[in-house]
Amino acid sequence: MKKITFLLLLCNLAIYGQSEDEVMLKNIYESTLTNSKCYDWLDYLSNTIGSRLSGSKSADEAVNYTKLELEKLGLDRVYLQEVIVPKWVRGEKERAYIENKGKKINVPICALGSSIATPKKGLKASVIEVRGIEEMNELGSEKVKGKIVFFNRPMTPIHIETFKAYGGCVDQRSSGAREAAKLGAVGVIVRSMTLRIDDYPHTGNTNYGDLPKDMYIPAAAISTNGANLLSDLLKENQNLQFYFKQSCETHEDVLSYNVVGEIKGSVNPDKIMVVGGHLDSWDLGDGSHDDGAGCVQSMEALFTFKKLGYKPKNTIRVVLFMNEENGNRGGLKYEELSNKNNENHIFALESDAGGFTPRGFSIDANEADFEKITKWKYLFEPYLVHRFVIGHAGVDIGPLKSKHIIKAGLKPDSQRYFDHHHAATDTFDAINKRELELGAATMTSLLYLVDKYGID
Amino acid sequence: MKKITFLLLLCNLAIYGQSEDEVMLKNIYESTLTNSKCYDWLDYLSNTIGSRLSGSKSADEAVNYTKLELEKLGLDRVYLQEVIVPKWVRGEKERAYIENKGKKINVPICALGSSIATPKKGLKASVIEVRGIEEMNELGSEKVKGKIVFFNRPMTPIHIETFKAYGGCVDQRSSGAREAAKLGAVGVIVRSMTLRIDDYPHTGNTNYGDLPKDMYIPAAAISTNGANLLSDLLKENQNLQFYFKQSCETHEDVLSYNVVGEIKGSVNPDKIMVVGGHLDSWDLGDGSHDDGAGCVQSMEALFTFKKLGYKPKNTIRVVLFMNEENGNRGGLKYEELSNKNNENHIFALESDAGGFTPRGFSIDANEADFEKITKWKYLFEPYLVHRFVIGHAGVDIGPLKSKHIIKAGLKPDSQRYFDHHHAATDTFDAINKRELELGAATMTSLLYLVDKYGID
Repeated sequence: MKKITFLLLLCNLAIYGQSEDEVMLKNIYESTLTNSKCYDWLDYLSNTIGSRLSGSKSADEAVNYTKLELEKLGLDRVYLQEVIVPKWVRGEKERAYIENKGKKINVPICALGSSIATPKKGLKASVIEVRGIEEMNELGSEKVKGKIVFFNRPMTPIHIETFKAYGGCVDQRSSGAREAAKLGAVGVIVRSMTLRIDDYPHTGNTNYGDLPKDMYIPAAAISTNGANLLSDLLKENQNLQFYFKQSCETHEDVLSYNVVGEIKGSVNPDKIMVVGGHLDSWDLGDGSHDDGAGCVQSMEALFTFKKLGYKPKNTIRVVLFMNEENGNRGGLKYEELSNKNNENHIFALESDAGGFTPRGFSIDANEADFEKITKWKYLFEPYLVHRFVIGHAGVDIGPLKSKHIIKAGLKPDSQRYFDHHHAATDTFDAINKRELELGAATMTSLLYLVDKYGID
Repeated sequence: MKKITFLLLLCNLAIYGQSEDEVMLKNIYESTLTNSKCYDWLDYLSNTIGSRLSGSKSADEAVNYTKLELEKLGLDRVYLQEVIVPKWVRGEKERAYIENKGKKINVPICALGSSIATPKKGLKASVIEVRGIEEMNELGSEKVKGKIVFFNRPMTPIHIETFKAYGGCVDQRSSGAREAAKLGAVGVIVRSMTLRIDDYPHTGNTNYGDLPKDMYIPAAAISTNGANLLSDLLKENQNLQFYFKQSCETHEDVLSYNVVGEIKGSVNPDKIMVVGGHLDSWDLGDGSHDDGAGCVQSMEALFTFKKLGYKPKNTIRVVLFMNEENGNRGGLKYEELSNKNNENHIFALESDAGGFTPRGFSIDANEADFEKITKWKYLFEPYLVHRFVIGHAGVDIGPLKSKHIIKAGLKPDSQRYFDHHHAATDTFDAINKRELELGAATMTSLLYLVDKYGID
């Protein structure tokens, strides 16, 4: 009889617990959908401040603005972490043309981040088209030397999640210049990482690695329309010439900051949960999706807890990381300081895949912890959040280590992300207020559950 | 032993069958994502033909264009069904202002579909703001007579699916004028059915019902910014005046068409499966989401079957219905002819909720049939299509009756739909090619499964 009573009690608790969580998630979503700040914050970041490349004046403005806005939320502590960041500057607008049978056809390009400039008068050479680094290496230096290597492997449309297609191509952009330089190429042109066929070049970092500086060669992205044209013309005339001119420069490193705000834990102040995105962006658009969205969603999570009067057991810390795009110095510095201060992080959540309708989470955890989080999935299904997978959580929180930490990344719908990613089309008008808010509410809900139930 | 062998055989068949379906869905999705026509068709419908209000020249052009394109697919039969449709014409651009304390403030409005015009010089009256028809009826004719009724109940942001919020408001637009006229109002202004706060008025049909013609009053939609302004000013000054002028006209009914194309069933040619959307649209945008998307997705389904060499057992018929927006005459005519010809429809699938990322299906069926379809859900999950619910399937296929018919509606992500619905913002640039294609592939996949397994 006692056993039965105990079972009933357990059942009641289970039911009560379930119901309490359902009510809390309902409150989180309703509060976010009716009374959020994230859309207005992003409007300011995007339309008043604009793009926020590391080391730029506008990146500084974004640090000051978000710190001020966090201070208005009545958190227990808001502060900056010094981060020394690279300062790469695009310079004047790039120019490029294909010179074919006496005709010059302009094509849209942009310098890749961290690339060197061309000579002042530009660079003209014949072109060797390849589908990737491997194919180039097979051709060898004889075919590559003195040429511009044109990396033209497109993102494949068949993957349902576009990040998979991106992952299958991005080595051309990140390592193409370095590898081509080793074979004596004079420059690199990379097909833009997008599934759209349009006139926008997409930038992104290129990495010369250990290459001696005098071997660096200039690297640019070309729009997909431009890439298709170049490829078509090369089929007719292998001897056509490609000209491009860019004046980008890498300056001395400069001082910048991670922006941090926290609510102290009421029970376990030494257990830290991080939620964040990266405040820096590329310079062509205004960085609304990448990653202004992730920053304001993370700020919104803390605002929601304050609004609802929820006092977290653990310390919840929003971190707006600096320099994800070309160095990840903010993420590295955060880990360095955490380590130095003997901090114990139990959870880190990042949003850096655009401000689109949330579909689920990508969770970087062991099987047991993943199972535990997946048990909460039913709580998210009324909000059409249905996908919990094991996987990469985020670049900024990547370096973070702790004795027992779970990391998660918000997974929004990915169909439109690469229409905007690193291009002039990453602008505020491509943000839907509700989609942004739903993402924020989804993040807040997971923070609540991890805070309430812990991860032990 | 025999039993075990039989069970093993069954298992193998089940596994084989599962694998065959998985392969077929993979083929459908990959083929649609790499080699579709729907985006180009929609480009033509939207950018070359434009909006397609019933009875308009461009609606005729859309009939001719889609018939021609279906003929190119090598279907067994392509034909038109005559439909007599209403012809309502907006006339010159509407004008409206609030006259408050001697100041005139212009606000964006548009006539509601089927509305009458104002007097030629416009209509000016004082305003009574209500949250809905019930509140107006409680006020009674004393408070309403001689006034413009301003229906200002907003769509609520708390519902995750925006159609629910729409359903909670749309009576103001569809019946507000009729009911206000009964109380002696001289006109009606309705808050636009959208969750955005912006300057675009959203049209849509209003229905005078059995009201005698001499009691009709003009009805217009006002943008949400306009509605908020009007509401704020009314709080300060109940005696302000509202002026609006519209010159819309209802002409004689005219001849138009449903466009039909079919692949004859190889086993059961008399069992018919319909897939469709509506070819007509409102006149403010170009009708890309509502419902050009549904039309081209439906056409794509038949194109995919032809491309893949799939020979359906049952007859699969694409129907592009005319006049969903202001009469549903196409849907009614299709049912009338089906009935007259003793046709046996086993399945009808409609796409009329925008060309966004597909999330699932809304299925109008009995529990047993719903269960059967839900058993296929696992096949859709790799494509992130996860939501099968019992519910409304579509307006055009609404009238369709048969001895045993299942109806389904594609459920795309609904967050952005009412940013565009019935407004000048329903344009081709708001279409994402992949989202459109994923919807088409999702529809094609369900058609394939219903065709293969039947519904008995």
